[in-house]
Amino acid sequence: MNKQHHQGERKFIQSVRTRAGRAGGPLRVGIGDDAAVLRPKGKSEIVVTTDFSLENTHFRRDWHPAKAAGHRCLARGLSDLAAMGARPMGVFLSLALPVGTMDKAPGRKWVDNFLEGVLELAKASGVKLGGGDTATAPGKEILADIVLLGSVPRGKALLRSGAKVGDGIYVTGTLGAAAVELEVLSDDPKKFTRAKVTDKDGHPHLFPKPRLNVGRALIRRAGTSKINSAIDLSDGLSTDLAHLCAESGVAAIIDAKLIPLGGTLLHALHGGEDYELLFTGKKVPKQIAGVKVTRIGKIQKAKKNQPPVVIRMPDGSETPLLARGWEHQI
Amino acid sequence: MNKQHHQGERKFIQSVRTRAGRAGGPLRVGIGDDAAVLRPKGKSEIVVTTDFSLENTHFRRDWHPAKAAGHRCLARGLSDLAAMGARPMGVFLSLALPVGTMDKAPGRKWVDNFLEGVLELAKASGVKLGGGDTATAPGKEILADIVLLGSVPRGKALLRSGAKVGDGIYVTGTLGAAAVELEVLSDDPKKFTRAKVTDKDGHPHLFPKPRLNVGRALIRRAGTSKINSAIDLSDGLSTDLAHLCAESGVAAIIDAKLIPLGGTLLHALHGGEDYELLFTGKKVPKQIAGVKVTRIGKIQKAKKNQPPVVIRMPDGSETPLLARGWEHQI
Repeated sequence: MNKQHHQGERKFIQSVRTRAGRAGGPLRVGIGDDAAVLRPKGKSEIVVTTDFSLENTHFRRDWHPAKAAGHRCLARGLSDLAAMGARPMGVFLSLALPVGTMDKAPGRKWVDNFLEGVLELAKASGVKLGGGDTATAPGKEILADIVLLGSVPRGKALLRSGAKVGDGIYVTGTLGAAAVELEVLSDDPKKFTRAKVTDKDGHPHLFPKPRLNVGRALIRRAGTSKINSAIDLSDGLSTDLAHLCAESGVAAIIDAKLIPLGGTLLHALHGGEDYELLFTGKKVPKQIAGVKVTRIGKIQKAKKNQPPVVIRMPDGSETPLLARGWEHQI
Repeated sequence: MNKQHHQGERKFIQSVRTRAGRAGGPLRVGIGDDAAVLRPKGKSEIVVTTDFSLENTHFRRDWHPAKAAGHRCLARGLSDLAAMGARPMGVFLSLALPVGTMDKAPGRKWVDNFLEGVLELAKASGVKLGGGDTATAPGKEILADIVLLGSVPRGKALLRSGAKVGDGIYVTGTLGAAAVELEVLSDDPKKFTRAKVTDKDGHPHLFPKPRLNVGRALIRRAGTSKINSAIDLSDGLSTDLAHLCAESGVAAIIDAKLIPLGGTLLHALHGGEDYELLFTGKKVPKQIAGVKVTRIGKIQKAKKNQPPVVIRMPDGSETPLLARGWEHQI
C-alpha cells in the first residue's frame, strides 16, 4: 500500500483525541501517552471488561445505523460493569479500519457516527474515552474492541459465584424486547439505515440502556435486603442463568408466568441483548433506582445429573431450561 | 452457520481458563464473571494500554511461528507499561477466530501455540491472564486485541510530556536489531516457520524483551539522578522521539555516532519494534537494572518552524530527522 494515498492513523488519532476531550475525574492521563493513567478512589477495586464489536459478527453496516453500532459497542461493557456494581472509570476503544476507509465520505461519515454513538453514551454514563489503539484492518470489515474499567468499593463487587440456596431470582425491566426488534430488522434489514432513527427510546436492540444505576444501588443496599450474586442478561436468560448457577454451584427454578415479557416467552428466554440485570438475594424491593424489579424464581441446591435450570411452564409442568442463547462459533 | 458443526466458544473459554490458572496476586477475580476484579495496592494509580495483533497487519501465519505471534502480541503492551514505570497487574486477551479454526488440527495447534506464547511471557513477567473476549472473526484472519493493566505509585508514572530543556536523551540496549531480523524474514519468509525456533534469545523481532525492570527502576531512582519523561521504542526512534517532543513541547538533537547500533543507522532510526526504552533526564547512570544505557543527545527548546528532531550525522552535518517509522494506513 502506498502511504501517500491513504490517511494515516496519526491524523485520525488527533481527531479522536479532540473529540474525547481533556482528561479529568479518575482519568489522569488520556490519549497521547504510552498508556493511560487512572486514579482510583481510596479503597477501591478495579473492574475490567472487554468486548469485541466486529462487523458482520456483531453488527452490519447495512443493517445498523453507525451511531447504534457505536452505542451498542459501549453498552455491552457498561452492562458488565453494572452487573458488578461498578462505577465506570474509563473507556478504551481499539478500532481497525480497512485501508481507504477514511478516504471517502461514506466511510469517514460511518466512523464519525460510530464514534459519536460511543462518545454520547460515554458522556451520559459519566465516563471518558482514555485511549485505545488504531490499525489497518486486514479484511474489508471494521473491527472494534472496547475495554471498560470501573471501580467498586473493596470486596463489594457483585459476582456470579455468590448465589445461595434459598435466594430469590430477580430481573430488572422486561425481557425479550431487543430480540423482537432484531426480528423486525431481519425482516426489513434497511429499515433503520433507510430512515434516520431520531429517538433512541423504544429501540431496545439499537440503543440498549445498561443498568448502571441499578448495579450501583445493589452494592449500596443497606437495610434488610441482601444481594448475593448478579449477571447481566446479554446472551439470553436461559444461558446467563445457567452461567450464574455454574459459577455458584447451585441450581435454579424459574416460573414462566412471572417473567416480565417484552416479547414472547421464547424471546425472553433465549433472545439475549436485553442488558437487564439478573441478581439473587433476599428481601429485595419491587423497584431499585427507579427501575422495576421482578422476582422470577429461586435458587435451589444443585443435584447430580439434574439440569441446573428448570422452568415451570404456564400449564404447571416443570421442564429443564436448556441454554439456547448466543454462542460464537469458532 | 450450523452450530452442530463447529466448536462453540464455551469449550474454548473453558480450556483457556484452565491454562490461565487461578486468580491470585492483584487479580482477585479472573475468567468466568461479567468482568475481572483487580485489587491495587494502597496509593497506586492504574496504567492501561491496548494493542491489536491482527493477522496480515501485525503478523503473518506463514511468517511467524504461532508462539512468536503470541509473545509479540503481549510484548507490545508490556513495553508500554515499562515506559510508564508500571508493574503489570493483569492481561486481558480478546481473540476472534474464523469459523472452523478449532475444528482442524493446524488451526487448533496454531491457537494453542499462540496462547502458549502469551502465557509464557505473562508468567515470566509476573502477570496473569484475567479475562478478555472471544468471537467469530468475520473474515479469514485471526484477530487479537490485548489489554494490559499495571500499577504505579500515585503520581509517579513516567509520561511522554515531562521532558525538560537540558535533559539528556537516553536509550536502553541497542537499536535496529529487530528490523534486521524482519529483513531476514522478508527475504526468506518461511525461515522460522519451516525450522522450529527453539531458543528465544537472539530473535529480537520474534521474541522481543520488554524492559519492565528498567522502567520500574526508573521511577524508583532516588539519589541524584532525575528522570523526566519516557517512551518505548515501538514505532522507531525517529517517530517515537518526535512523539515525545510533541507531547513535551520541546525539540531534540541526537548524535548518530552515539546511537548504540543493532543494525545499520537506518535500521536504528526508523526500524521500530526494538521495544527498548527512550527516556530523558539528568545524571543517569550507564547501566540500569543490568541493562546498558546510552546517552544519544539532548532536549532543546522548541523553535517555531524548526523541525522537532535534528540529527548530527557522522560527518558533522546537522539535518532534520523526519518521522519515518511505522504508521497504519486507514
